[in-house]
Amino acid sequence: MSSRVFQFDTNHGQITTPLFMPVGTLGAVKGLTPDEVRATGAQIMLANTYHMHVRLGERTVKKQGGLQKFTGWNGPMLTDSGGFQVFSLAKIRKITEEGVTFAEPRTGDKIVLTPEKSMQIQFDLGADIIMAFDDVVSLDGSEAGREREAMERSMRWLERCVAEHKRLSEGMNKPPLLFGIVQGGLDQQLRKESFEFVQSQPVAGIAIGGLSVGEPRQEMHAMLEFLQPLYTDDRPRYLMGVGHPIDMRFAIEHGIDMFDCVLPTRNGRHGTAWIKGDQQINLRAEMYKEDSRVLDPGCDCATCTGPYSRSLIRHLLHVGEMLAGRLISIHNLRYVQRICDANKA
Amino acid sequence: MSSRVFQFDTNHGQITTPLFMPVGTLGAVKGLTPDEVRATGAQIMLANTYHMHVRLGERTVKKQGGLQKFTGWNGPMLTDSGGFQVFSLAKIRKITEEGVTFAEPRTGDKIVLTPEKSMQIQFDLGADIIMAFDDVVSLDGSEAGREREAMERSMRWLERCVAEHKRLSEGMNKPPLLFGIVQGGLDQQLRKESFEFVQSQPVAGIAIGGLSVGEPRQEMHAMLEFLQPLYTDDRPRYLMGVGHPIDMRFAIEHGIDMFDCVLPTRNGRHGTAWIKGDQQINLRAEMYKEDSRVLDPGCDCATCTGPYSRSLIRHLLHVGEMLAGRLISIHNLRYVQRICDANKA
Repeated sequence: MSSRVFQFDTNHGQITTPLFMPVGTLGAVKGLTPDEVRATGAQIMLANTYHMHVRLGERTVKKQGGLQKFTGWNGPMLTDSGGFQVFSLAKIRKITEEGVTFAEPRTGDKIVLTPEKSMQIQFDLGADIIMAFDDVVSLDGSEAGREREAMERSMRWLERCVAEHKRLSEGMNKPPLLFGIVQGGLDQQLRKESFEFVQSQPVAGIAIGGLSVGEPRQEMHAMLEFLQPLYTDDRPRYLMGVGHPIDMRFAIEHGIDMFDCVLPTRNGRHGTAWIKGDQQINLRAEMYKEDSRVLDPGCDCATCTGPYSRSLIRHLLHVGEMLAGRLISIHNLRYVQRICDANKA
Repeated sequence: MSSRVFQFDTNHGQITTPLFMPVGTLGAVKGLTPDEVRATGAQIMLANTYHMHVRLGERTVKKQGGLQKFTGWNGPMLTDSGGFQVFSLAKIRKITEEGVTFAEPRTGDKIVLTPEKSMQIQFDLGADIIMAFDDVVSLDGSEAGREREAMERSMRWLERCVAEHKRLSEGMNKPPLLFGIVQGGLDQQLRKESFEFVQSQPVAGIAIGGLSVGEPRQEMHAMLEFLQPLYTDDRPRYLMGVGHPIDMRFAIEHGIDMFDCVLPTRNGRHGTAWIKGDQQINLRAEMYKEDSRVLDPGCDCATCTGPYSRSLIRHLLHVGEMLAGRLISIHNLRYVQRICDANKA
């Protein structure tokens, strides 16, 4: 077991791991300004390629100078590939060797995503780190048996992403960094094959995908233990979609450098906070009605150092006042950054 | 026509008019922190007695040290009396000499409000300025003929508020300031009688109530012209529920010192902003899709001096991202404060 500190450069500055990337699904971390996100200790923000593509269009973002300028974040930014949204949102989808065709849930519009298309969108969005387009498999049992097929397809798609990344980078001064994604479900043999293939590619970082998708916590942890001896020291390791403090602590101890997850902010909007000792509390509870303490007395976030009592936050949650979600989101984001910071000391 | 600068002390500091009071209906200006509200230039904030009473309870607020401490605003605060909510929210209400009985719209609970009860709640909430409980009449025609009755009842209720304020103030080091409210609809004779009565009472300020409740703008302006010669110099004059730039400019020129209104923040949440020249624009419009200018280039608010383009704000509105409402609310609040500030220079 060992954590590490790793540094690498992006087009918008150097970043130091371990780090957590707040998720700005549609260009904003829900309810928060870029300054507020930065004040939680975030070095890099994530935006969802799929949502930006469908809800605004990458051409508009490009005309506005790219995601960093458009969102006002003005710092390092990562975009995912859309692969996870295909997996999580599309009820009806058709996966072929070429790519994925599916009906956009909001509009019913037919959407076609391929490795090349994903690269093109991400280049237009202008992120500093872009992700390979992969085929994600649920681990809740509903897709049992599809792991090898999806893993092998993800390998072939990665080759196409690498080729398209190379093509699109021609003549560019500062092309984005491309990260490959390891798949293979909970099967060690598949994971090893996938890892070795991704590792063999000219990618700038190694992401572990397809975990935290319905499997028991111990299974995820066992896979992180299995993967750890395989890592080389030269590239960042990014565990996708994981942001629970317990998992982050375990993953950092097992060599993971980067995280992203909607949990801190989604929980925050629903009134749930982590406080000292990874205790999870819901501020809506009656017991906080007259609790004049701050959310987490030991915390240094803007919420916990501000004039906000648990009593106030509970009240704001009960009356549906959106400030409550902001205040708890800020605390939760800081909470997970502090887990990362503890490993840099 | 003449505006004025007037200063007076509250238990939480001196305030200088003309000024606009942002409305923190339930203890927060929707979506904003107290610091953000203060940064718009606000000196004093308003909270709604009725909503705090029904949704949380004044006893809880009192135990938390009063509204200023509870909300984190920690500055001058005004509470209304509940009279306007009785008027605007209660579909079924029974007005007697004693007070008002009505069914709370959310829960159906029977609520009884009297002048004494309103004073008691406002004392518990702990505001610096509290308002008399009055009988408000709609000016959209639906209550035609009730103006004299309501005005005269408001006068008798004011006497009871004054008496209850005196009783509750006994032994208190710093009792709140009580403002009386002038009623009388659009009838000059009624307004004059009401004004002279309020003026004769030991109140710390004179509020003009029952305007901006459905009447044409010219009628409200005509009444402000009529009232102006009646004012004395010793007390602040507060025009309740008015916050449109055009009305504020007119009112300030006609001797009004204080305003409150949900318009800047409600408009903000719906995407509507005032920009240079009192132009009202809706940021949802397609024409802003690729407009990289800030909301109002001449404005000094946090939104207009921040990294937020019209293009971004339009996008955030379209995807339902609540940051948009925050950004425009901040601008609109600053916009109306700048109208006030222009009259202090």
